[in-house]
Amino acid sequence: MAEIRINVLIKANPGKVYNALSTEEGLASWWAKQTVAKPEVGFVNVFTFGKQFRNEMKVTNLTPNKRVEWKCINSIDEWIGTDISFDLEEKDGNTILRFAQSGWREVTDTFAGCTYDWASFMKSLKLLCETGTGTPS
Amino acid sequence: MAEIRINVLIKANPGKVYNALSTEEGLASWWAKQTVAKPEVGFVNVFTFGKQFRNEMKVTNLTPNKRVEWKCINSIDEWIGTDISFDLEEKDGNTILRFAQSGWREVTDTFAGCTYDWASFMKSLKLLCETGTGTPS
Repeated sequence: MAEIRINVLIKANPGKVYNALSTEEGLASWWAKQTVAKPEVGFVNVFTFGKQFRNEMKVTNLTPNKRVEWKCINSIDEWIGTDISFDLEEKDGNTILRFAQSGWREVTDTFAGCTYDWASFMKSLKLLCETGTGTPS
Repeated sequence: MAEIRINVLIKANPGKVYNALSTEEGLASWWAKQTVAKPEVGFVNVFTFGKQFRNEMKVTNLTPNKRVEWKCINSIDEWIGTDISFDLEEKDGNTILRFAQSGWREVTDTFAGCTYDWASFMKSLKLLCETGTGTPS
């Protein structure tokens, strides 16, 4: 099994980052503009990119200001069954964000391309939390 | 052993990307502004970030328009002994870049932080090759 792991320091408190990761408005402001989401364990968030790339993510863990976790239940084949998690650790009023997408069957070109894309979206999340404006797709 | 893998499409031909990866001027324009480098197998390129973070990378492979490879011989402890490679594949006049840093002893916070940083620098390399201006440190 392979795993994408990305850490970044966000100069905002964990509450602000948690909000961006759990609410529809937050998620639409850094990841997919077309987002249907609820901060509710068991709810299936739907993220659509353009007309074709639709992701269904079941919310499996919501620990306020600490952790958000999803199970991918519908997407491209390589993503189905992967777990996506965001861990937040407070440090001096800021947030260390630890992102992971685990359960990849193997390291492929898609894996390496998604690593680039996820890092770009972590930058978007950081910008959203620090400046109020992200760069969602 | 763990490995960082990042792919990105660069809208420029492989010759342009190879130049940015092998010459002092190219490397200083997307990675470290303070670069001493030669496009010569066996030469030790030195990349310095600020006053403290100094990287010595021995050039181990230069295949024009195809591949650049370095062995890290001096840097932070976790980087020493790792191999860094850039593979270029031409596609419709553009370049598929496949980056890897292999030989990490384990997946750590540094590994995950470097994944974020390398992806940012791949974006800088892409910008340099596509627009003439990167964002080196």
